Amino acid sequence: MSGAQRPALGIDLGGTAIKAGVVTHDGRIIGRGERATEVEKGVGGVVANLALAARDAMANAGIASSEIAGAGIGAPGICNPRDGVVVNAVNLFWHEVPVASLLKAELGLRVLLDNDANCAALGEQWCGAAKGSDHAFMVTLGTGVGGGLILNGKIYGGFSGWAGEFGHIPAVENGPHCNCGQHGCLETVASATAIAAAARTAIDSGWSPALARMATAQEGRVDARLVITAARAGDEPAREILAEAGRHLGRVLAGLVTALNPELIVVGGGASHAGDFLLEPCRQVVREKTMPGPGGVVRIVRAALGNDGGLIGAASLAWR
Amino acid sequence: MSGAQRPALGIDLGGTAIKAGVVTHDGRIIGRGERATEVEKGVGGVVANLALAARDAMANAGIASSEIAGAGIGAPGICNPRDGVVVNAVNLFWHEVPVASLLKAELGLRVLLDNDANCAALGEQWCGAAKGSDHAFMVTLGTGVGGGLILNGKIYGGFSGWAGEFGHIPAVENGPHCNCGQHGCLETVASATAIAAAARTAIDSGWSPALARMATAQEGRVDARLVITAARAGDEPAREILAEAGRHLGRVLAGLVTALNPELIVVGGGASHAGDFLLEPCRQVVREKTMPGPGGVVRIVRAALGNDGGLIGAASLAWR
Repeated sequence: MSGAQRPALGIDLGGTAIKAGVVTHDGRIIGRGERATEVEKGVGGVVANLALAARDAMANAGIASSEIAGAGIGAPGICNPRDGVVVNAVNLFWHEVPVASLLKAELGLRVLLDNDANCAALGEQWCGAAKGSDHAFMVTLGTGVGGGLILNGKIYGGFSGWAGEFGHIPAVENGPHCNCGQHGCLETVASATAIAAAARTAIDSGWSPALARMATAQEGRVDARLVITAARAGDEPAREILAEAGRHLGRVLAGLVTALNPELIVVGGGASHAGDFLLEPCRQVVREKTMPGPGGVVRIVRAALGNDGGLIGAASLAWR
Repeated sequence: MSGAQRPALGIDLGGTAIKAGVVTHDGRIIGRGERATEVEKGVGGVVANLALAARDAMANAGIASSEIAGAGIGAPGICNPRDGVVVNAVNLFWHEVPVASLLKAELGLRVLLDNDANCAALGEQWCGAAKGSDHAFMVTLGTGVGGGLILNGKIYGGFSGWAGEFGHIPAVENGPHCNCGQHGCLETVASATAIAAAARTAIDSGWSPALARMATAQEGRVDARLVITAARAGDEPAREILAEAGRHLGRVLAGLVTALNPELIVVGGGASHAGDFLLEPCRQVVREKTMPGPGGVVRIVRAALGNDGGLIGAASLAWR
């Protein structure tokens, strides 16, 4: 079909910002648009911002909407891709929002929808670190920990759309309280947020004078990026914080690798910029705790598309 | 197709015994055959016994092989269903054995193959406890702990055929040694073997005089069945042993339910005869440790087909 060769719009709908891009059929972004989400304006306001970001991207690409194959949205929460409905998105305060048809009414384009981590997985599978793999996990270490499963070449959503919620797998017995109501979920110990919290403890206890100095230099702001910078500069406590997050991730992945025998695990999100400071301890735990068969074949790698993975994967929905 | 209405042969290939059955298209077994596996006779000897068990089943059903749609084998180990090859089966000492084509040469029938736990899952999905479910796990608590995954209505084998090896998911930090080389795998704490081992400890330590008496009455033999009988009779230590196995199972399932969002988990194998003594503590841990979305929908139930599930599921391969 000729539509398959036309570019598509990919839209990454986040709690803070909306990022749109016109994506060519070979995975290049040829025009971008970005708007604040403005969750407080309600569904109508957010949909208006989605349309504005999309139109900006098309204008910057110098392309009319009639030349676009369709649009895909990656949304933060539980989605029903078949009906284009966001079932539940805590950060948007959305419940049963038919965002695909609402945006279609604004843009006059076919609009598809999936969960943001699933879109990131699709992006990496299409033209990133999981290119060509039919059996891969995506794990994103950001504010929380997200996940997407590619099984037999397709996103697996589970019985009711929740599959891939790796962030809420129990990781530590009696661990920190999690927003989901449980304790010790993976995201309480391996997200960028958890890494920042561990850094704050290291500063307050006097364990890492280097982290303390660096935090002071940026007005006391402590985030995962600071820890990664300190680790690269040789700070042992910073390296240990990243290694510990990696080991927690590895313990959870060991069980999933044994259960699902993936070819590949792609790790993305802000904390993945730690690279081997986090991934090598993770790989080591997976090697130790996974039975030889599935443990021997799986590879654990960094995402290749960075922050654009979700947008690129969302665009690919329009061609499916 | 007319072949779809003809009965099929299902064969359950175990390390000790081979069980065959002629299965009708509505899931009834109309003739059975059983032979010792005789692993020590090598591949040729085992294949001859497979053929003998199959012929016995056909003779007992009063049916000629020309009236049979085909045969399916459930084998204990890693299988390549596409080529009908047992890739690796520790208990048979088999490595890369093309058992489907070997048996086809003996019987003159089309022969299909899959892993035994996968066959049990298919049987339960076809006409047992998972009837009609497209998103279900099967867990078998026997000598070891096996598993099968039905995702999108089909068995999921993973990248290299290992998917579903629930028995080797890490369950207990620094737990008992496992045959796979690791420590604390689920099957070291939740299999029928593990339940028997816990009973032996309860006897030796004097914790359960009831178990001790019952074991003496059967010449010191201690197995999961003994513990189940004692639990039914009201023995608290026996009940606690089964509950503890259930809680270990629940902790592992909680992570898998969060990751995969199944509709149903079917628990089979010898230890599943413990029923709610084991399953209710398991369900309670899953409820506690799974996030509300996937945790709220999953049901955990006993297998309905007992020891015949694998045989019935194997037969169903012939119609697929």
